[in-house]
Amino acid sequence: MKRILVINGPNLNRLGKREPGIYGKNDLASIEEHLIRFAEENGSTAVCRQSNHEGDILDWIHEAENEFDGIALNAGAFTHYSYAIRDAIASVNIPVIEVHISNIHAREEFRHHSVIAAVAAGQIAGLGVKGYELAVLALIGE
Amino acid sequence: MKRILVINGPNLNRLGKREPGIYGKNDLASIEEHLIRFAEENGSTAVCRQSNHEGDILDWIHEAENEFDGIALNAGAFTHYSYAIRDAIASVNIPVIEVHISNIHAREEFRHHSVIAAVAAGQIAGLGVKGYELAVLALIGE
Amino acid sequence: MKRILVINGPNLNRLGKREPGIYGKNDLASIEEHLIRFAEENGSTAVCRQSNHEGDILDWIHEAENEFDGIALNAGAFTHYSYAIRDAIASVNIPVIEVHISNIHAREEFRHHSVIAAVAAGQIAGLGVKGYELAVLALIGE
Amino acid sequence: MKRILVINGPNLNRLGKREPGIYGKNDLASIEEHLIRFAEENGSTAVCRQSNHEGDILDWIHEAENEFDGIALNAGAFTHYSYAIRDAIASVNIPVIEVHISNIHAREEFRHHSVIAAVAAGQIAGLGVKGYELAVLALIGE
Amino acid sequence: MKRILVINGPNLNRLGKREPGIYGKNDLASIEEHLIRFAEENGSTAVCRQSNHEGDILDWIHEAENEFDGIALNAGAFTHYSYAIRDAIASVNIPVIEVHISNIHAREEFRHHSVIAAVAAGQIAGLGVKGYELAVLALIGE
Amino acid sequence: MKRILVINGPNLNRLGKREPGIYGKNDLASIEEHLIRFAEENGSTAVCRQSNHEGDILDWIHEAENEFDGIALNAGAFTHYSYAIRDAIASVNIPVIEVHISNIHAREEFRHHSVIAAVAAGQIAGLGVKGYELAVLALIGE
Amino acid sequence: MKRILVINGPNLNRLGKREPGIYGKNDLASIEEHLIRFAEENGSTAVCRQSNHEGDILDWIHEAENEFDGIALNAGAFTHYSYAIRDAIASVNIPVIEVHISNIHAREEFRHHSVIAAVAAGQIAGLGVKGYELAVLALIGE
Amino acid sequence: MKRILVINGPNLNRLGKREPGIYGKNDLASIEEHLIRFAEENGSTAVCRQSNHEGDILDWIHEAENEFDGIALNAGAFTHYSYAIRDAIASVNIPVIEVHISNIHAREEFRHHSVIAAVAAGQIAGLGVKGYELAVLALIGE
Amino acid sequence: MKRILVINGPNLNRLGKREPGIYGKNDLASIEEHLIRFAEENGSTAVCRQSNHEGDILDWIHEAENEFDGIALNAGAFTHYSYAIRDAIASVNIPVIEVHISNIHAREEFRHHSVIAAVAAGQIAGLGVKGYELAVLALIGE
Amino acid sequence: MKRILVINGPNLNRLGKREPGIYGKNDLASIEEHLIRFAEENGSTAVCRQSNHEGDILDWIHEAENEFDGIALNAGAFTHYSYAIRDAIASVNIPVIEVHISNIHAREEFRHHSVIAAVAAGQIAGLGVKGYELAVLALIGE
Amino acid sequence: MKRILVINGPNLNRLGKREPGIYGKNDLASIEEHLIRFAEENGSTAVCRQSNHEGDILDWIHEAENEFDGIALNAGAFTHYSYAIRDAIASVNIPVIEVHISNIHAREEFRHHSVIAAVAAGQIAGLGVKGYELAVLALIGE
Amino acid sequence: MKRILVINGPNLNRLGKREPGIYGKNDLASIEEHLIRFAEENGSTAVCRQSNHEGDILDWIHEAENEFDGIALNAGAFTHYSYAIRDAIASVNIPVIEVHISNIHAREEFRHHSVIAAVAAGQIAGLGVKGYELAVLALIGE
Repeated sequence: MKRILVINGPNLNRLGKREPGIYGKNDLASIEEHLIRFAEENGSTAVCRQSNHEGDILDWIHEAENEFDGIALNAGAFTHYSYAIRDAIASVNIPVIEVHISNIHAREEFRHHSVIAAVAAGQIAGLGVKGYELAVLALIGE
Repeated sequence: MKRILVINGPNLNRLGKREPGIYGKNDLASIEEHLIRFAEENGSTAVCRQSNHEGDILDWIHEAENEFDGIALNAGAFTHYSYAIRDAIASVNIPVIEVHISNIHAREEFRHHSVIAAVAAGQIAGLGVKGYELAVLALIGE
Repeated sequence: MKRILVINGPNLNRLGKREPGIYGKNDLASIEEHLIRFAEENGSTAVCRQSNHEGDILDWIHEAENEFDGIALNAGAFTHYSYAIRDAIASVNIPVIEVHISNIHAREEFRHHSVIAAVAAGQIAGLGVKGYELAVLALIGE
Repeated sequence: MKRILVINGPNLNRLGKREPGIYGKNDLASIEEHLIRFAEENGSTAVCRQSNHEGDILDWIHEAENEFDGIALNAGAFTHYSYAIRDAIASVNIPVIEVHISNIHAREEFRHHSVIAAVAAGQIAGLGVKGYELAVLALIGE
Repeated sequence: MKRILVINGPNLNRLGKREPGIYGKNDLASIEEHLIRFAEENGSTAVCRQSNHEGDILDWIHEAENEFDGIALNAGAFTHYSYAIRDAIASVNIPVIEVHISNIHAREEFRHHSVIAAVAAGQIAGLGVKGYELAVLALIGE
Repeated sequence: MKRILVINGPNLNRLGKREPGIYGKNDLASIEEHLIRFAEENGSTAVCRQSNHEGDILDWIHEAENEFDGIALNAGAFTHYSYAIRDAIASVNIPVIEVHISNIHAREEFRHHSVIAAVAAGQIAGLGVKGYELAVLALIGE
Repeated sequence: MKRILVINGPNLNRLGKREPGIYGKNDLASIEEHLIRFAEENGSTAVCRQSNHEGDILDWIHEAENEFDGIALNAGAFTHYSYAIRDAIASVNIPVIEVHISNIHAREEFRHHSVIAAVAAGQIAGLGVKGYELAVLALIGE
Repeated sequence: MKRILVINGPNLNRLGKREPGIYGKNDLASIEEHLIRFAEENGSTAVCRQSNHEGDILDWIHEAENEFDGIALNAGAFTHYSYAIRDAIASVNIPVIEVHISNIHAREEFRHHSVIAAVAAGQIAGLGVKGYELAVLALIGE
Repeated sequence: MKRILVINGPNLNRLGKREPGIYGKNDLASIEEHLIRFAEENGSTAVCRQSNHEGDILDWIHEAENEFDGIALNAGAFTHYSYAIRDAIASVNIPVIEVHISNIHAREEFRHHSVIAAVAAGQIAGLGVKGYELAVLALIGE
Repeated sequence: MKRILVINGPNLNRLGKREPGIYGKNDLASIEEHLIRFAEENGSTAVCRQSNHEGDILDWIHEAENEFDGIALNAGAFTHYSYAIRDAIASVNIPVIEVHISNIHAREEFRHHSVIAAVAAGQIAGLGVKGYELAVLALIGE
Repeated sequence: MKRILVINGPNLNRLGKREPGIYGKNDLASIEEHLIRFAEENGSTAVCRQSNHEGDILDWIHEAENEFDGIALNAGAFTHYSYAIRDAIASVNIPVIEVHISNIHAREEFRHHSVIAAVAAGQIAGLGVKGYELAVLALIGE
Repeated sequence: MKRILVINGPNLNRLGKREPGIYGKNDLASIEEHLIRFAEENGSTAVCRQSNHEGDILDWIHEAENEFDGIALNAGAFTHYSYAIRDAIASVNIPVIEVHISNIHAREEFRHHSVIAAVAAGQIAGLGVKGYELAVLALIGE
């Protein structure tokens, strides 16, 4: 049984309200509920958190080392400039998989580069909220 | 009657103390009082907030969608790297006007580029604290 | 009482005809008439000129030093390459405020950079023809 | 039931022999067999092909439009320069998901940029051969 | 007698746990204790703080102006993108010395550039935790 | 019957005199005469103009909208920096085809980029004065 | 009488099926038939070939030297990276004219640069399938 | 006896009025008078012209080929973007020497590059109005 | 006794015909014959192949691992963009030496960079067909 | 007891005479005397050398390996281009600490990058001549 | 009476022998003799030195401060990378004029930028050995 | 019989001591002895020199023109910035072959570019000390 932490970063509390053409129609609460059930169906547990504060995300990554077996992280726009999150990931011994709902490689130039990718275990992008499921599966399967 | 939110970002609590040659001699409290009166004189209302925390600014922009008709935003240095604020602006349906007290285009190279400009309604720069008044007028006039 | 010179540069004689989705439906003549009245209502005078010739704009800026108290300048596409206009502005002792009808920072890459911004007093962009009004107000208020 | 085409590009016939520290120990034949079974277990079918010739991959993508419901494509090093594969993907109406065994974003600079990502449905990187499974799942789930 | 503020930024609470090959084996608490003693031995006082929140660091720099004679600042990854911290330093009248435990100039490209260096009094890098001592000495000696 | 305007920009009055190795031996007058005949032979009319003044070219493009069905434009060196001509082309509803006598893509680096190409209907380069004929044919055939 | 070789590169076998908004509705076979007739009507002959294999195009260019008087080449996406085709063109003594159906200078950044242009005789872009006709005319007229 | 044409470009009519710290206190008329006398003292003749219109400068360079033996050209800000002036210089068979009153290489970045230098005979910069004298001497001495 | 594979890439079948000023007058067949004799004279054997197809070169490099002790590779223009060849070289355990007949570092900018150099054992450039001999010697001497 | 070599590079013989606003008022001789005493007070010895010749500095670094326990090196302007000094440092087994009197990161762009930093043990910048003392302390403490 | 130091840098001892198409046919000795006479004819004195050693040039610039009233410096290739010479010039209080025999702005890219120009009084380029005369005149005239 | 000059530049006196993993275990003296014998065995003579002073290398290249038939030059780190050495090579009429012991194209970014390659006859890199032998052979064979 694996314990998975799902972290959503800035503006992802707006899911369902924000640009549905890009991010889909489900709101964050229903996605989180779905992922908790999905983890259980796969014999594991998932805990979900969201914050617009970079510092919260750093704290959660630090704490996760002892409480979780892996992190599925959608760092939102922090993906593109938060070297602090990069360092936080590098400082813990559990795998972190980047998830992006939209295909960041097909959007604005600044979204093509992830400053955290170099220290993440892997990246899943463009597959909608299904991307979270796949990340959970990958972390369970490790 | 329009309801305007005025958000000042990092270090703008230092106005009057910080580099007065660039930012002028008035402190933030007196500017905010002035803007509240100015909005009233123009048949509207203004609410003013300041924070050094990026996350607070994200939260305020999200909440403003239901409570205000427009935002005058001086994001301070966040202007130049906070793609999270950019995404927050893109996620709400009210106009946001960038205000910069100094002429950012005439200062250091890194200040020439605003990562939020592409999703803002417009930008007013270099006109001192009068820039806030003009932004309020523009939002009222919309 | 302040005397304001309003200069419109290349292609702005096409206002109303050119890409109305970007530049609005009013033609230049009606905007100029409006600004002249607007200046009078605010106890000042405005004179409006337009040219597609860079050299004319240089000449007007030079001459304005003795006849006007400030210039509201929409240099159109010259904004992005006319270092000659930049030098003209730097050579006179009256404030020049850049006006852009559209939000140049949200359009093509080449429009993000203004070669004249570094010597202008300030910049107003993206607020439509209202931007001219705000520039006039700012120059009057100086 | 979905029909999935799995395409492996240049040098992937060397899997198991080539830099096993990066690409793992399984050879391509066993991975392909596994994926065919995996697709069947998920109520679908998978067909697997490999070529070191860019032209073959173009031909297969073209033909796939009528025979398959989606493509899982590991374009190997072509990922980084084959604008022809990009155009091929853009010319067909079935989803293509990029798969990379290693985390290309954590390797040499030239591997950070995928010229095909902008037209792919999504990208899965760094999750080893499990990445192919996840791509198949995502294509089935569409 | 000089009063020195020592600020450690994001992820430095992980010292001793995080990549000991780069950052050494001492944890932050013991380093802070050592610096307090070291300052006392040199006839001064040191106060030590750490936060993963950029906003906290801005607040502390602002407040320090009245309470301290200098700041030794290890801004961690914020060094490379927090123009807000840069502005905070520029807004206070006490010297700030950058400290980096590792030699940032010998690591990844993005660590070679400090956005705060231009407004700091100086920079000490690559000398391990001894760097903090040297910064304290330099601030005392001013 | 189509009415075609042929505009030649700066220095093209020097054709025949200027660097004949690059631009050929015919002078502008004979080329213009030839094009007028060529258009007539193809059941259309051509009018030819040349100026070294960017402003003239802007004026001609504006006026052409009502008087011509298409423009063959050799903007000479203005091709590489006149965003004003770009805007003029974008502001009219008739097709403009760029013509370059020499192969600009095979000459100095600065000639490889045309700032007007993005709004032109197409580009013909390197085919000598025959390029004007081909542009006229293409405009007639539209 | 001139003998013209028309070479179409990768994905151009998809004409008519691929993004008709950009490339038009005619399929390659009908365009090739049309060009053969067009060449005959102009007292010449045309032979048409297409391949998705870069190597085939190299071979055809090499062989053409003895069999044809000129080549009209639409290298498709190879235009932007195949230095091998560039070298092939440079190695033969017959003129090669680049044809692009769409205006490559008005599309994605990577399409603005042709690595073969420097050795081609000229370039025709953005004039649809008519561009092939013009290239044939230009080669006949040489 | 040599006939020298001295051309001053945009804003140089402002000499004496414009930024005297950079450009000196003499006005253009007195400098021109001085150069005419200076040329005579050296057994030659000088004719002096100034314009803010790029097109005028092109026309003068073209005409000079038959009337003068050399040109001393201070193209002002056109130096940095007027490829049209570059082409004009390249199209005439008399030497053109660039003169810059200030040391353009020690000023703003954009002034370091002259687009006309590559076709000029030489460049004299930073030696004040004496630079014109030296250019005249050099042209006489050729 | 060493077994050496000599691979020549695109357009090298044109040796002797192609730009003899750069590549010399010998054709490929005579060079290959010479190298086979040269290897024999040095107590080894050489096998020579040429293809214009990138895929062929990949296949040959893969197969060479078991049949040869080293490869002398002139990848022609593929040198500058074929990351696939780079990966092929990295995937085999025998040394590969790059040979370039001309001094690629003294030609066009794009020829200065070899994407395969980072995984080759070494590079010999500019020494004409003698470069192949030296590569064979170096491989024999290993 | 540690033996420290202090090397000052080009133009540092001008200390006290050269730009005292940047480099302070003490001349090199008095700084060197002070450092020798300072090393002795800390139970070590210091030897000081200066040269304007890059080759001398290379020689001294080579020789130091056997005679000293560490080097405090102010390479002056060589810091920014002497890859030879970089290689010299990399070739010896004793630590080298870069010292810069001024804060190079706050000066001209070209001074922000040190080509030797990547192989130095650390860097002290902006702390005036006190920086030498701190470097000596750090080397003694190793 | 002014005392002028003329310094020639690396490879200028090769004048007359080296690429006479670029640098002329006179050897350095005869140029130096000529300049000494030329200075005398203009009521001043000139001393001429040449070295291929950067360090020598630094030493001479330092010493010149007390013995000369100005320096005419042709730093040869050092112009393009010797920040040490730049610092030497900045450290003395006499004017230094850069002289370049050839028009460096019209040659290879790397010769377009002078790292010493920003601190030189001015620059004379492209006027052959006459450039030295003009520099001497300018220094005398100051 | 050919006379070959072998020049080794900065830090190559450290061979055998410096980073043996990169440069091998032989010291410079033994390599030089070997090359002298090797040249003799091939019916020629070799003279070997080494200096850490750029100026010495310039002098030797100048003098070699009359005394040698070719130069094998390992310029060490000077390879990457000494435009002076480039000019020296261009000023002599004997061939110079660059030798690099390590594969500079596979090391740090700054080592990928040789500023002297454009004027060298050729380059041999990555073949260890055998590279010197091959260069000697190539020079003898010319």
